[in-house]
Amino acid sequence: MPNPTAAMLVIGDEILSGRTRDANMHFLSGQLTEAGIDLREVRVVSDDPDAIVGAVKALSAAYETVFTSGGIGPTHDDITADCIAKAFDASIDVRADARALLQAHYDRQGTELNEARLRMARIPDGAILIDNPVSIAPGFTLGNVHVMAGVPAVFQAMVATVLPTLTGGAPLISKTYRIERGEGDIAGPLGDLAKEYPDLSIGSYPYQKEGKYGANIVIRGTDEGIVNVALAKLTAVFPA
Amino acid sequence: MPNPTAAMLVIGDEILSGRTRDANMHFLSGQLTEAGIDLREVRVVSDDPDAIVGAVKALSAAYETVFTSGGIGPTHDDITADCIAKAFDASIDVRADARALLQAHYDRQGTELNEARLRMARIPDGAILIDNPVSIAPGFTLGNVHVMAGVPAVFQAMVATVLPTLTGGAPLISKTYRIERGEGDIAGPLGDLAKEYPDLSIGSYPYQKEGKYGANIVIRGTDEGIVNVALAKLTAVFPA
Repeated sequence: MPNPTAAMLVIGDEILSGRTRDANMHFLSGQLTEAGIDLREVRVVSDDPDAIVGAVKALSAAYETVFTSGGIGPTHDDITADCIAKAFDASIDVRADARALLQAHYDRQGTELNEARLRMARIPDGAILIDNPVSIAPGFTLGNVHVMAGVPAVFQAMVATVLPTLTGGAPLISKTYRIERGEGDIAGPLGDLAKEYPDLSIGSYPYQKEGKYGANIVIRGTDEGIVNVALAKLTAVFPA
Repeated sequence: MPNPTAAMLVIGDEILSGRTRDANMHFLSGQLTEAGIDLREVRVVSDDPDAIVGAVKALSAAYETVFTSGGIGPTHDDITADCIAKAFDASIDVRADARALLQAHYDRQGTELNEARLRMARIPDGAILIDNPVSIAPGFTLGNVHVMAGVPAVFQAMVATVLPTLTGGAPLISKTYRIERGEGDIAGPLGDLAKEYPDLSIGSYPYQKEGKYGANIVIRGTDEGIVNVALAKLTAVFPA
């Protein structure tokens, strides 16, 4: 049985402007690979309602699970929750359970739960809250979309909450073999190997270091025995 | 006049599997911001023909310029050129100009231009070659899509070739002000400021460091005078 499929939507002007280098995509992709969930696509869109709603609709229809990051804070540019509600035709307002979490948190801190902070309790009808042990304001799951914060520490904590609730597939075994020759020398035998093992994913990732060409060949599959046999054939053709 | 729009398509199983952290998206986004070109969307897809063709069609229709990275080497998983041709209904084969570049390069090196290396001369009809000063195998431009290598050193060299040929808009002025208070305290006045200056993009990027909350407020616009006035108002409300 093929592994479950997933996509990620990063809502982030700061990534698109080059101000910030992505961290959440890199974190999530590693976690999903370990869990045997096949991340097929990532989109990064700006803080624009039409772009967000369009991407949520497209990704939630095409993949089994969607993860979003960013745009669920208290400021004017935090519009993700409203966009998710719109994409699913759900109504949205300040919800009692989320409000109670925030109220208790800010009471402990002696901070006012002002109008801006209350925005973080806007949760679509029918959504399930995602625990935020770092800064309390929850994420949520609506349909097959898990809506999480953009701050990496919070994003990672929310992923840790959501992942165990998902049914993963067989974890992907991945073995890398570095060949210090140009890809043009490697390509022929490698293509033959890929044809011989259609169930494996065999990728060639070229590099250039100090004027020398080489490639990291990555063999991936769910059956470690088959991965090892293919790796042995490759090393026989290109000894270290 | 609004700045020209752009999108990027990253073709990369290695990003989706978490093996590699993206570098090209971060590089290109910074370059485009400097050039006054508005990067609106990035997609990362796997080495799958349908996924690549679909994304190329969608992005090239929606944005003025599209940049792709990855999948133009000599190995079996390098399918980008054929997918771009398919997306544009162009025919594709080994092209004489690209072949001549490769032949001269490998002759100098005393390396055989074998069948695998010749794949890198597959260029769609009507495409314009993009110079590759690093490793010779060219990228190409077809329609509004610039097809470039995934290896960061080559990608960057190709971007340096392509960018000066594009008409940019006014460079975006971006000023950042760090406020060491929770976003919930900042949100109200910040929202008012965003309403007062609809031509500016005002973003709040929260962080948490050693248990303290804060946010970097980024004010962006093409008119430096207006950016400075808005920044002065913000600093008056939240003095350092």
